[in-house]
Amino acid sequence: VNGSHTEMGELRWSPAEKAIARRTFERALGKELQEVIGEVKARAPRIEEPADLWDLERYLTRKRQEIDRKYDYRYSVLPLVFARLLHERRITEEDLRDLRQDKLDLIRRGAETISRL
Amino acid sequence: VNGSHTEMGELRWSPAEKAIARRTFERALGKELQEVIGEVKARAPRIEEPADLWDLERYLTRKRQEIDRKYDYRYSVLPLVFARLLHERRITEEDLRDLRQDKLDLIRRGAETISRL
Repeated sequence: VNGSHTEMGELRWSPAEKAIARRTFERALGKELQEVIGEVKARAPRIEEPADLWDLERYLTRKRQEIDRKYDYRYSVLPLVFARLLHERRITEEDLRDLRQDKLDLIRRGAETISRL
Repeated sequence: VNGSHTEMGELRWSPAEKAIARRTFERALGKELQEVIGEVKARAPRIEEPADLWDLERYLTRKRQEIDRKYDYRYSVLPLVFARLLHERRITEEDLRDLRQDKLDLIRRGAETISRL
């Protein structure tokens, strides 16, 4: 309204942008899931006591909930999702290069805000 | 009351019987936990997809709940606990041999009842 910021809800995503968004999103999600798989494979051989079992269960539950919440593919929240992934270095600005400038600005601003939290 | 059955709540456990009960209980619990540990170690290397991860999480949650419910060390329910463990062949009559006859009868009858369910 005051003209300086684009609001997320106002953004239009072109088909080309949707393709970029989808690819970037899926790739980050896939990598994060592979990290969890790697962690489970690394932890399993070291399980000695029942407590280690329930630690693994809690780890899996926490990761599932985190991933469910983080990877929300609705265009209305996608800039925030990408801002967080950028902040966590799960994606790069390079991945998003071909998005329109208004989205890139919003995502960068979001990532900077998260860094300051 | 009708003289033919001993009720669980009426049973007295001597110190020697308590020692037998405790040892048998802990050994069965320890073995069951080791089985779960073995299963996790066997499954982890075969995890390929995210679905395998969440299957493992569900398996762990289910086992934790099952084990929590099954291994209830209160003397008032212990004959039923042993009846179930006997039915599942997690303990043998030999393990319980030195309990008093009233308890052995109750445990055996319980195991037979479970088999018929």
